[in-house]
Amino acid sequence: MALIVQKFGGTSVGTVERINAVADRVAAERKAGNDMIIVVSAMSGETNRLLGLASEISDRPVAREMDVLLSTGEQVTIALLSMALEARDCPARSYTGSQVRILTDSVHNKARIKDIDGSRVRADLDAGRVVIVAGFQGIDEQGNITTLGRGGSDTTAVAMAAALKADECQIYTDVDGVYTTDPRVVPEARRLQQITYEEMLEMASLGSKVLQIRSVEFASKYSVPLRVLSSFEDGPGTLISVEDKNMEQPLISGIAFNRDEAKLTILGVPDQPGVASRILGPVADANIEIDMIVQNVAADDTTDFTFTVHRNDFAQGMEVLDKVAKDLGAREVSGDDKIVKVSLVGVGMRSHAGIASQMFSTLAAESINIRMISTSEIKISVVIDEKYLELGVRALHQAFDLEQK
Amino acid sequence: MALIVQKFGGTSVGTVERINAVADRVAAERKAGNDMIIVVSAMSGETNRLLGLASEISDRPVAREMDVLLSTGEQVTIALLSMALEARDCPARSYTGSQVRILTDSVHNKARIKDIDGSRVRADLDAGRVVIVAGFQGIDEQGNITTLGRGGSDTTAVAMAAALKADECQIYTDVDGVYTTDPRVVPEARRLQQITYEEMLEMASLGSKVLQIRSVEFASKYSVPLRVLSSFEDGPGTLISVEDKNMEQPLISGIAFNRDEAKLTILGVPDQPGVASRILGPVADANIEIDMIVQNVAADDTTDFTFTVHRNDFAQGMEVLDKVAKDLGAREVSGDDKIVKVSLVGVGMRSHAGIASQMFSTLAAESINIRMISTSEIKISVVIDEKYLELGVRALHQAFDLEQK
Repeated sequence: MALIVQKFGGTSVGTVERINAVADRVAAERKAGNDMIIVVSAMSGETNRLLGLASEISDRPVAREMDVLLSTGEQVTIALLSMALEARDCPARSYTGSQVRILTDSVHNKARIKDIDGSRVRADLDAGRVVIVAGFQGIDEQGNITTLGRGGSDTTAVAMAAALKADECQIYTDVDGVYTTDPRVVPEARRLQQITYEEMLEMASLGSKVLQIRSVEFASKYSVPLRVLSSFEDGPGTLISVEDKNMEQPLISGIAFNRDEAKLTILGVPDQPGVASRILGPVADANIEIDMIVQNVAADDTTDFTFTVHRNDFAQGMEVLDKVAKDLGAREVSGDDKIVKVSLVGVGMRSHAGIASQMFSTLAAESINIRMISTSEIKISVVIDEKYLELGVRALHQAFDLEQK
Repeated sequence: MALIVQKFGGTSVGTVERINAVADRVAAERKAGNDMIIVVSAMSGETNRLLGLASEISDRPVAREMDVLLSTGEQVTIALLSMALEARDCPARSYTGSQVRILTDSVHNKARIKDIDGSRVRADLDAGRVVIVAGFQGIDEQGNITTLGRGGSDTTAVAMAAALKADECQIYTDVDGVYTTDPRVVPEARRLQQITYEEMLEMASLGSKVLQIRSVEFASKYSVPLRVLSSFEDGPGTLISVEDKNMEQPLISGIAFNRDEAKLTILGVPDQPGVASRILGPVADANIEIDMIVQNVAADDTTDFTFTVHRNDFAQGMEVLDKVAKDLGAREVSGDDKIVKVSLVGVGMRSHAGIASQMFSTLAAESINIRMISTSEIKISVVIDEKYLELGVRALHQAFDLEQK
């Protein structure tokens, strides 16, 4: 008998019919003998309805009250799902974040979980009940309601799994797992059976938006086996866990890409200590998030400095950089918002040389020019022209043998 | 500087516009220097929406989960009202029933308040904040969410006023006070400036549905001055409080009536000890609530027994009574569901004789036949034919000098 945490997102509980479908699935699994904790989000549309009410009341609603308001969304779902289970003669009990006692810090709207008291939930599990927990919400030391921010239900599920030492945390979504790359770009993309936390983090942060990054970090920290599954069709999904030493790792697990990037370059900056922070400081001050950074030293004791930002921040970034260039006496500023980032991800590349050169030669064979390169232990990212995205990803997918078998 | 508790019901907070109007009113009163606790209901329509969701899920939703579901309604309102006040630079803080710690028993859907911890609320008041409390809800010893049943927000307001020793508890409704009788029947009906708890209880239970009976009982028990006001127009409303010994009480405060009554009679029952319970026991067992009871002894050692029930229970009541009549060897059963009850209410009648005879002669002068009479210390009720209701109430209203001055 295992303890399983299952999380169902907004679309999976978006209507009474879907809540009933979830109840059927949970009741069956409980009958099969597993202990079950179910974490749910607000019914899809409900959070937006509540946000709409708040925005009608105030342009800048108080953060504390926003959390009081939004947390009702999940509370409705836990009550309905619990009723649906009881209607199937499956004993169940709902818990708000406050009732579990999911203790968080006091940063309203994006609180972080500090501690979970599992004792009441444990008692209900021992009594044979399915425990339904409201995702996304907690309570601070003073008893104020907090929320974890959008997508926080994934984090709640992983945290509950960690606190109760669950055997597996299953995240039900509208996709049936994690793929080698986006199937809309490469129809031959293959669902991965297994992937490491680190790979998933690289895949997620690079644009394969299946799981909240924070929840994967959390799962990694507490070694909670995490599984991504479809709530609409049966299947084993993708298991995200620690690296399996006994298994031959594939060289590359997947190819992530990001269409939202823009590239800014400042050329001919006098090469002095502290120059990077004098360039990036003003950018950060303007609340622009920076992704890749590349710096090259030129022959004439000046340096060229390139970084990428979200495409929405491109215009503002150029303005900031123009000013910085003047202050630093740099030669020139240039930019390009028609670029994309493509990344190979895989723990296997740690122990295999030659991945980078194979990547570059594959792109070269398609006459795709590489504009920037950045590497980490388990990924290699390149920036290329936007128009080559599909061609590049398909070529790499084939070159690294990621197709359906 | 006074401490005022104000309660706004569902229609008073039914839209964003109305919530803003309430916020204007509260902010003005706070500015005038009063400490304020505001108790609110769910936005009108919201409770029914939630009930609808529950009924789609289950024919008989679990009571515990129903409370988890319904309590979200008030939670939305407290957040929105608190935001609206903050947007007016009026510091405010919302509290769910659980956050105040409104401790109740564990009878879900109709819990009773056992205790209120006023310390956190007091601290916020002392810090100059308006405190917004979710009506209708509490928490039991085990931390389960409970609700007080429909209209329970009035009770929450009175209980908060009692716990915090407020100077007055103001209930904002869609009427501007308690009237001598229903103005739709008697256009000359007059708003009462003041009325005692006992009178209000008789008026409310007899069909003048302005306040929840439980909240009036509660206010009486803790001597909380209660005021009924309109949330849509300004005015002093009606103050409900203890009897004012220094004031000459009017003989009669008002005339209540109830159109929903039906009358059942069992004739010629052998007059033996215990006969009343042998008649009414089976009626109560059928879950039929009994209102008035009248018993007369006839000359031949039999008795006639009449009682009234809600008109919806008439058919079932007659069935039960037919069976009882057979068991008891009674002569006959008869019934009438075309009757109404009209009651004079007033603490003044305690010390004045002649009210009853004036009432009967007034009705006789209009050729209205009295079918039943029942009296208590501060009220006299008669049952008359339904068709005479308006005529009778108008005649009494004039005879006892209740018109607008």
